[in-house]
Amino acid sequence: MAKQEDIFKNVVSHAKEYGFIFPSSEVYDGLSAVYDYAQNGVELKKNIREYWWKSMVQMNENIVGLDAAILMHPTTWKASGHVDAFNDPLIDNKDSKKRYRADVLVEEYAEKINQKAQKEIEKARARFGDAFNEEEFVTTNARVVEYLSKRKEILARLAKGMTDDLQDVKALIEELEIADPETGSKNWTDVKQFNLMFGTKLGASAESAMDLYLRPETAQGIFVNFLNVQKSGRMKVPFGIAQTGKAFRNEIVARQFIFRMREFEQMEMQFFVRPGEEMKWYHHWKETRLNWHLSLGLGKENYRFHDHEKLAHYANAAADIEFNFPFGFKELEGIHSRTDFDLKAHEQYSGRKLQYFDPELNENYVPYVVETSVGLDRMFLAVFATSLQEETLEDGSTRTVLKLPSVLAPTKAAILPLVKKDGLPDIARKIIEDLKWDFTVAYDEKDAVGRRYRRQDALGTPFCITVDHQTIEDETVTIRHRDTMKQDRVKISELKDIIENEVSTKNWLMKM
Amino acid sequence: MAKQEDIFKNVVSHAKEYGFIFPSSEVYDGLSAVYDYAQNGVELKKNIREYWWKSMVQMNENIVGLDAAILMHPTTWKASGHVDAFNDPLIDNKDSKKRYRADVLVEEYAEKINQKAQKEIEKARARFGDAFNEEEFVTTNARVVEYLSKRKEILARLAKGMTDDLQDVKALIEELEIADPETGSKNWTDVKQFNLMFGTKLGASAESAMDLYLRPETAQGIFVNFLNVQKSGRMKVPFGIAQTGKAFRNEIVARQFIFRMREFEQMEMQFFVRPGEEMKWYHHWKETRLNWHLSLGLGKENYRFHDHEKLAHYANAAADIEFNFPFGFKELEGIHSRTDFDLKAHEQYSGRKLQYFDPELNENYVPYVVETSVGLDRMFLAVFATSLQEETLEDGSTRTVLKLPSVLAPTKAAILPLVKKDGLPDIARKIIEDLKWDFTVAYDEKDAVGRRYRRQDALGTPFCITVDHQTIEDETVTIRHRDTMKQDRVKISELKDIIENEVSTKNWLMKM
Repeated sequence: MAKQEDIFKNVVSHAKEYGFIFPSSEVYDGLSAVYDYAQNGVELKKNIREYWWKSMVQMNENIVGLDAAILMHPTTWKASGHVDAFNDPLIDNKDSKKRYRADVLVEEYAEKINQKAQKEIEKARARFGDAFNEEEFVTTNARVVEYLSKRKEILARLAKGMTDDLQDVKALIEELEIADPETGSKNWTDVKQFNLMFGTKLGASAESAMDLYLRPETAQGIFVNFLNVQKSGRMKVPFGIAQTGKAFRNEIVARQFIFRMREFEQMEMQFFVRPGEEMKWYHHWKETRLNWHLSLGLGKENYRFHDHEKLAHYANAAADIEFNFPFGFKELEGIHSRTDFDLKAHEQYSGRKLQYFDPELNENYVPYVVETSVGLDRMFLAVFATSLQEETLEDGSTRTVLKLPSVLAPTKAAILPLVKKDGLPDIARKIIEDLKWDFTVAYDEKDAVGRRYRRQDALGTPFCITVDHQTIEDETVTIRHRDTMKQDRVKISELKDIIENEVSTKNWLMKM
Repeated sequence: MAKQEDIFKNVVSHAKEYGFIFPSSEVYDGLSAVYDYAQNGVELKKNIREYWWKSMVQMNENIVGLDAAILMHPTTWKASGHVDAFNDPLIDNKDSKKRYRADVLVEEYAEKINQKAQKEIEKARARFGDAFNEEEFVTTNARVVEYLSKRKEILARLAKGMTDDLQDVKALIEELEIADPETGSKNWTDVKQFNLMFGTKLGASAESAMDLYLRPETAQGIFVNFLNVQKSGRMKVPFGIAQTGKAFRNEIVARQFIFRMREFEQMEMQFFVRPGEEMKWYHHWKETRLNWHLSLGLGKENYRFHDHEKLAHYANAAADIEFNFPFGFKELEGIHSRTDFDLKAHEQYSGRKLQYFDPELNENYVPYVVETSVGLDRMFLAVFATSLQEETLEDGSTRTVLKLPSVLAPTKAAILPLVKKDGLPDIARKIIEDLKWDFTVAYDEKDAVGRRYRRQDALGTPFCITVDHQTIEDETVTIRHRDTMKQDRVKISELKDIIENEVSTKNWLMKM
């Protein structure tokens, strides 16, 4: 556990030091749970977005793109259920004036009890060694049985209170004598629902102003445009509409760096299908999306499906693709069979038909929808954290290397003159002039070449191309591979093909 | 004038019919001055953004990117002057409850007087024919002299009132007996300043909430990150930071389609230079940015510079690149020499140094800044409106063609089987499989091939590739060029090079 925390701290500090991610408005001490993508981060983020867009839109004849605005008519959020049901249950401590999520307070209490049980189990395991039977132990040891059943009871009462009556959650907090984690006070207010949407006002005067929300998800922008896209694009079911864009949630407990931010970016695709065919497509997209992730080569063992047992009110099937983040397996992407819930709701609230005429069946219907939804910032974190590695080299020294999938690397090649004289910088710049039309490339002439290699390793640059005195004679350079540190001597004229072969989207997507 | 309005209406309806731009939340009757980019619009917008990014960031060793969040620490907007001075002067009519921009009411009144003078001039021109001397007429004709001097006096009083005291603007409105344009009522409230920033609240409780703004411009995100980027990227002055992203302004009078929206996207670059060298760079960027626009081939006559006489408080030189929109020449891009105003303001409000150590001069200073700022949506409108053309063909028929610069076209090629049988669709799809890795391509088998050509013309697709029976025999297809409608017979294996040569960013940017 300590090690995981260290890894995570290292991720955050590397991201800042090497120009990937800065805290937002840092000169003003930052804005909580909001981050800016710096000069290398913006390129990595763009490349992830483009890798997704290419595979979803450009490769699929029956998927088209969309870029709906962040501001939408407020009835949209009434229809989607967000105005009434997109809430967190909050409780204030009257003494400290601190505010908490009531459910998280109870969950943390339950987890502490679970930790006690785990401690007993570990002690017993150490005592009995190979003879230890955990399954038997947890059902027979009185203390463990008590801990685990207490935990189960608490979580069940919490779940019931969350659905039935929030005052039962308050009663539970008081009964368990849960204290303010910061001050120890047990003097609590009632539990109240707090809507997670950011509100704003459109228009000038208080009386004529319209209450708007910053969209909490990009999906609804697709649903309200469904018929306009279908008609103007002459799309036939099954077809998809894909979109990337910002969404906003006024999270009370926002944490874990860019994993849960108040302003974040989604990459979503809504796939419209015939009613009754949604399960076929749900399974198709689960598999296809996992293969997309696997194509990046971050390791199959880092992904797993988590099928939802309890479904949201709009879904008849749902699964997450979870990724092994530095803080454990967490949701990276969601695949949801959303039925016709959203389109029907928009029909109801707008009074307009959102039906598709199916020429093969010769009938009208409201399509069913299968959604795939990735957090772009989470993808960034998954790729970045997994790629950041400390290696011990043969000579005993260590190097920090960011082994990004080369298709996503911010800079594809750094061109380094061995020394700052003898015309080597000029040759390096000529190589850049030739390569920069096709690739993002960098020039670096500062420090010894070994230090420059290390710096490019830390930035995730797949290739370092060094211009030396032999280059003047025979137009060859050395090309160094980031991951193996192997160097080859190649002709300048070969560089473009070598780089292209390694970084081309085609070659990476072919692995799907 | 009528013709211009017709052209503009045509632009708006073509944008909707062919899937470029839809009104936002149209099922709920739209949201005023907010639009969504549809399936073809999103691709055109992405291509414009990418064309800018490539020319600014990828091509320039000393310019890097950034992607700062929309939400920023609120002191940012205090320092930038937006909290105190980003206002519109508004006036309400007490009877109709309608709200207007006070300055616009006065300007419209002054324009009506100007129209009267112009009418006299036109009448005299008709009477005197070739002998008419306009210059002499406007200085000697009593009525015209009176109109023009009255107009001048009104605008001067308006300008003074806007600076000194808004109640003088109200007095002017009453004195001129300006009426509510919709109801004729002259019963006005006082003039009040209204801030154009959208506000929102971060955090859960009313007492702990923090007042935030949706950024009204992307520039400040660059300024507050200036030192982090400079240090982590080891940048040397002069260097630039480029950014594209959304900004929001609560415009009272938002109109002209996507020209002035409440939610819009900017493409900005801030170039940091030594104090005293800013005019050199200001002229450099004026020229460079104009050349970028000209590279798209929309016609040199459609651009002009407008040098600002009255400068904003932060600038020591400023110019617009104006474009000939369907409603006349209007600002498309601004190039501003912003001095050290912004960085110094952030130093003052944050208490942190934002200085650069110049190793060549061996001294610390706050850099001066030259800004280039294009509206992405305005670029879209400029490109789209200028490209949309009605042509009369030799046979007397007309065609609607969207002559987009091919580097920006949403779809680069449509592959059309001549008929839906004899294996032609299979060959067409095989061609698509080969081309789609490198280009956005479309498949269309519906309707006669002539109608399909027209449809692709209206979508701006540079190439139509038709598979016919000869293709089966010799692996050739016809390739039709959108603008000339010329058709060539070429080998399938040649297609990729032909398309690449026409649409590659490199070949277009080389025209700069």
